[in-house]
Amino acid sequence: MIRLAAMMLSASALTATQPALANPINESAGAENSMQAQAEYPPFFAEEMARSVQFVEEMMEAGINVPEPVDQGGGYTHEQHKRNYRAMYLGGHLYRLTGEQKYADFVRDMLLEYADLYPTLGDHPARSNQNSGRLFWQVLNDAVWLVNSVQGYEQIRDTLDAATRERIDTEVFRRAAHFLSVDSSRTFNLIHNHATWATAGVGMTGYVLGDDDLVERALMGSNRDGATGFLRQTELLFSPDGYYTEGPYYQRYALMPFMVFAGAIARNEPERDIFGHRDGILRKALLSTIQQTYDGRFFPFNDALKDKSLRTEELYQGVAIGYAITGDPTLLDIARWQGRTVISPEGLELSRALAAGEAEEFPFRSLLLSDGPEGDQGAVAILRSGAQPGHMALVAKNTSQGMGHGHFDKLTWQLYANGHEILRDYGAARFLNIEAKAGGRYLPENESWAKQTIAHNTLALDETSHFGGDVDIAEQIAPRQVMFSDTPGLQASSALIAGAYADTTMRRTLVMAEIPGLQFPIVVDFMSADAAASHQYDLPVHYTGHLMETGFESTSYTQARPVLGEDEGYQHIWVDARARPQPGEGFLTWLFDNRFYTYRFATDGQTEIILGETGASDPSFNLRREPLAILRREGTGGVRFASVLEPHGLFDGATEQTVASRSRIANLQHGADGTHEAVIVTLLDGHQFAVAVSPESADGSPHSLMIDGREIRWTGKLALLDLGGASE
Amino acid sequence: MIRLAAMMLSASALTATQPALANPINESAGAENSMQAQAEYPPFFAEEMARSVQFVEEMMEAGINVPEPVDQGGGYTHEQHKRNYRAMYLGGHLYRLTGEQKYADFVRDMLLEYADLYPTLGDHPARSNQNSGRLFWQVLNDAVWLVNSVQGYEQIRDTLDAATRERIDTEVFRRAAHFLSVDSSRTFNLIHNHATWATAGVGMTGYVLGDDDLVERALMGSNRDGATGFLRQTELLFSPDGYYTEGPYYQRYALMPFMVFAGAIARNEPERDIFGHRDGILRKALLSTIQQTYDGRFFPFNDALKDKSLRTEELYQGVAIGYAITGDPTLLDIARWQGRTVISPEGLELSRALAAGEAEEFPFRSLLLSDGPEGDQGAVAILRSGAQPGHMALVAKNTSQGMGHGHFDKLTWQLYANGHEILRDYGAARFLNIEAKAGGRYLPENESWAKQTIAHNTLALDETSHFGGDVDIAEQIAPRQVMFSDTPGLQASSALIAGAYADTTMRRTLVMAEIPGLQFPIVVDFMSADAAASHQYDLPVHYTGHLMETGFESTSYTQARPVLGEDEGYQHIWVDARARPQPGEGFLTWLFDNRFYTYRFATDGQTEIILGETGASDPSFNLRREPLAILRREGTGGVRFASVLEPHGLFDGATEQTVASRSRIANLQHGADGTHEAVIVTLLDGHQFAVAVSPESADGSPHSLMIDGREIRWTGKLALLDLGGASE
Repeated sequence: MIRLAAMMLSASALTATQPALANPINESAGAENSMQAQAEYPPFFAEEMARSVQFVEEMMEAGINVPEPVDQGGGYTHEQHKRNYRAMYLGGHLYRLTGEQKYADFVRDMLLEYADLYPTLGDHPARSNQNSGRLFWQVLNDAVWLVNSVQGYEQIRDTLDAATRERIDTEVFRRAAHFLSVDSSRTFNLIHNHATWATAGVGMTGYVLGDDDLVERALMGSNRDGATGFLRQTELLFSPDGYYTEGPYYQRYALMPFMVFAGAIARNEPERDIFGHRDGILRKALLSTIQQTYDGRFFPFNDALKDKSLRTEELYQGVAIGYAITGDPTLLDIARWQGRTVISPEGLELSRALAAGEAEEFPFRSLLLSDGPEGDQGAVAILRSGAQPGHMALVAKNTSQGMGHGHFDKLTWQLYANGHEILRDYGAARFLNIEAKAGGRYLPENESWAKQTIAHNTLALDETSHFGGDVDIAEQIAPRQVMFSDTPGLQASSALIAGAYADTTMRRTLVMAEIPGLQFPIVVDFMSADAAASHQYDLPVHYTGHLMETGFESTSYTQARPVLGEDEGYQHIWVDARARPQPGEGFLTWLFDNRFYTYRFATDGQTEIILGETGASDPSFNLRREPLAILRREGTGGVRFASVLEPHGLFDGATEQTVASRSRIANLQHGADGTHEAVIVTLLDGHQFAVAVSPESADGSPHSLMIDGREIRWTGKLALLDLGGASE
Repeated sequence: MIRLAAMMLSASALTATQPALANPINESAGAENSMQAQAEYPPFFAEEMARSVQFVEEMMEAGINVPEPVDQGGGYTHEQHKRNYRAMYLGGHLYRLTGEQKYADFVRDMLLEYADLYPTLGDHPARSNQNSGRLFWQVLNDAVWLVNSVQGYEQIRDTLDAATRERIDTEVFRRAAHFLSVDSSRTFNLIHNHATWATAGVGMTGYVLGDDDLVERALMGSNRDGATGFLRQTELLFSPDGYYTEGPYYQRYALMPFMVFAGAIARNEPERDIFGHRDGILRKALLSTIQQTYDGRFFPFNDALKDKSLRTEELYQGVAIGYAITGDPTLLDIARWQGRTVISPEGLELSRALAAGEAEEFPFRSLLLSDGPEGDQGAVAILRSGAQPGHMALVAKNTSQGMGHGHFDKLTWQLYANGHEILRDYGAARFLNIEAKAGGRYLPENESWAKQTIAHNTLALDETSHFGGDVDIAEQIAPRQVMFSDTPGLQASSALIAGAYADTTMRRTLVMAEIPGLQFPIVVDFMSADAAASHQYDLPVHYTGHLMETGFESTSYTQARPVLGEDEGYQHIWVDARARPQPGEGFLTWLFDNRFYTYRFATDGQTEIILGETGASDPSFNLRREPLAILRREGTGGVRFASVLEPHGLFDGATEQTVASRSRIANLQHGADGTHEAVIVTLLDGHQFAVAVSPESADGSPHSLMIDGREIRWTGKLALLDLGGASE
């Protein structure tokens, strides 16, 4: 079992007084700067240093190359300027660690080339909108360039003669800071991760150049009133639990400038107590970022690329700085999993603790992360069960929209099991930096498919998306987390949202329950909508795997495959088959890797099921082709869906062993009365269990329901009832 | 680089005089039978023993359970009888290793239950054809049961009182041997892996019971004339290079009874020199089985399930026995990769050598494995390049049909790169032991899709399959391997077949060439057919990955997806798009994992390309949905296709690094004259290379060709020519 309570995100560990942070650069300049110190580096750090040496030496051998900016993302000049900032960051740190002059000279010479180039630059020729950069096609990349380059420069600036220093200060860094904070003030003053990068770059430049004005601008915004700027970003972009409004994918991305700039603030102005700011919000942000992973990969909701895991530069930096600040030994466990660190003083400190065997298991656990600056705009509920790795994790996304990268997927969910994402979120439609795919930018299908409601595991009305797909409206209305339980064996999340569709309230309660006699926990999903008018209700199930069996006969489109709809994502769905299962027939079983999964829904015979695949209306092959099922009902007076997702059995092709390839559940019955709902699950052996919920009721209040003539009684918000054998 | 010449399949290692094989059971009975000996087992063996103890103890705790046979593959009684034979095999060996009486008693008691059951059995109720078993739904499983059970019985038979021994001998093993060799004599006398299992079971029973008649029947066939039986199988089922006629998937399966029974023959009748028989054919068979893998997985041609790797029981047995016979230290490398062994004396010998650090790297290499008893019925050509793991491997399947499990795929090929199967073979359409999928048997789609020509990377005429899909005709006609080169940097295979279609000769030459300036080797594919009449020629490309880009504009079927054809596999192909690229436009690029691949074909503007996906006419979702492209030409006088498959670049989503996502080749030109053919490959920088072949010519003979007005000259069968820069 995952240790559920070993470490809470609040309380002592996080609100502890911030330790006085030494200035690692000054302190260590002498100590590290010797062959002896190098010989004593722990292997973890020594390997990282060796990797850095190899990269920088290769760059030095190739000769300094600062090309005139021409290409968009993925193109030659784009990649070269990325290599350059990395070489300057690493070169500067290698100089500090080794004292070898060649590294300082290399960084200096490269910056002198930039000093020649920078004054000649205007808007980038490959810009695609008003947010043009100078070195790169978008201003964001220029900010990333500055964050990295200025850290390298910091390590070697003292070694320069005054004229050289003045030239680089003025022609490179002041210009870059001016470009970001003045010429690009629109971006700079956003409450958005682009602005975090920009303020971090400008603020760190201020510290390195001793320019208080730049620092003040970065911390307090262009108007120096604190309405925007870095500090305000820490207040508005994170919830009190450290959830970042755009979701974990961008949380990972934003974490680096937050942590790196905060580290610089702590060194230069410890009196600001930046890591104590807002009850330790940056440390909470780091821990919540890590919690929002499965097998190291970030939950891919909103615009997110699925390649991203904790094994990224942002998290190497974040974990190292986070460890240096908190001394939390469970972060060493994450570093061990990452297998990488950074060659900063913080990376060295972490490596030494790891070598000393101080790591403790990171407590991945069930938890609720509130959304919104005040924590009142919904939440992400994470329910975990079983041992790492391969444990089950349910993610209920009951968050607010999360700005422009948000998806129209209120109350959606995902399920992970056996090391895989079984109930999928598509993530973003984008092939990063691949020129042939729209230059590596977000694809048109990101709007036409990935963001649309039907692309998610949540309710879509009348073949339209939540909020009519209007982000401005979506930003005004957030779900409400109604209930959360992390009781082992009976965990649950319940939320509602009023207004995703006009005059409609949608409610969803997800229960992860351990049923005696079943190998794995099951998930019970109660999804309902109150709506007066007549609607068509679609509940998609985006599953991963190969269909083994359905409980029903279908009408199959085997000779010509039609498209499901016209717009709002429906135009991308091929229809394979349609059916209207009789009661008891509503299930499908699929196989993925070595486990089977059965999705079973209660039906009165009026629910249609549509089996399909993505990829229609996609002449450029921009979408992955993935299977899905859609439950569909039409009518007035709202809708209720009740279903169970049941992992079961084992398929081992190597040993030719197949166990329990068919569902262990014989029947599913459903009943409801207002917000009281229950299902009866009948196992193959006739034993019956009920899962009953009343999430909006008071603790301890008694409830009862009739299901097919049988009375179910329970108290409180949530219950698992053993109804005994069928014959009782 | 793979060591190309470190170990040849012929020569000394394999034809060495067979070492006198001790009888491991008698020899070791005292030595192993003590706690001290157990404490000294090497960890590899001790772990295997612990696994065995756990399994057998669980079986003992559950109580002996010998159910009346009812279920087909994957069902309860099927799986229980499989567990039982495994428990008897392991229980017997554990008794020998530990001397603990409880294991002997357990095997005895279970066999007494079988002695009660066996006489009551007739045809299995779930039989699907005339090859019914007694304990299982097909006779094959009964043979496997006997091979395993009798080995367990062998270990404990001496411990039984005479009456018990007599009862088990008579009521279980004589009945089982009689059923296999007399009642099922049709199967027993086949030249087929089913007969290998049957003869192995019967022959080993003969040795254990001291029944020479059973042994003779097994070795020489029912008629005792050697026209069938085990010895004849070793002569007819393997080529002189040890290639098994059904292909590597069934080679793996057949290897176990071959090796296990041969081990028994060597112990009981060393004078037969079974491992020296036919120039050491069984040892060649073992090594060729291992060579027919990539990343441990068997090349999946013919009816093959892709789950199967060297990590299977058959190969644990095969490698242990093979090592005991040959002492080949490279087999220890395979055992190490397997991570498993068997608890037989051979497994112990192997484990001790492994613990002594005697393992040497297994020499996976380029090689040609002839097919047919005389080695004249085609071949499998394997071309490898680069370091393990992730090396490139090209497999040209120029074999004969390979009996009933053979596919109609003459001259097809596969490409492996970067750890993956990039140019795919579908393998078999089957979900082993999954009841909902036709009871776990071969699916109807195995005939309608997996066996058909269009499901493979080879030429299909007029939307029909080779030999009209008639296995009896197919068995009469084999390809001829014309040329093979394993010269590093310029490897090739060339083969032809006359008669796969009436009056048609198909020729294919595949070249794997290292082109200076390109990161990875490219594959040049020359595919041609001579045919007088008018035909439609289809050349499919079954690729793995997501389409990034095409060089041509397509007509897309984005609103309703039609099916490509009516029959012979074509009914299973959805059409996504069609195009007729202009010269220079004929290419498509896909991404898989972190590498790009461009398939480029020379065209005069008359070649059509069809982009599609499998899954049409598949109402039960029995097929995997996979992409493919088909080159199509129509006309008289035959056809020539020339194409290049080029791996390139790097996609690293975690570090956001994308390199060379577009092909490094600017143009492909093709010319031919009779069986002389060449392509000119122009790189992006204008540098040109020619790959020229004349596989049917004499070594050293001069050739020349005109390609777009340029003369290409070379000598011999194969050449890579540096034509210099474009301006030259």
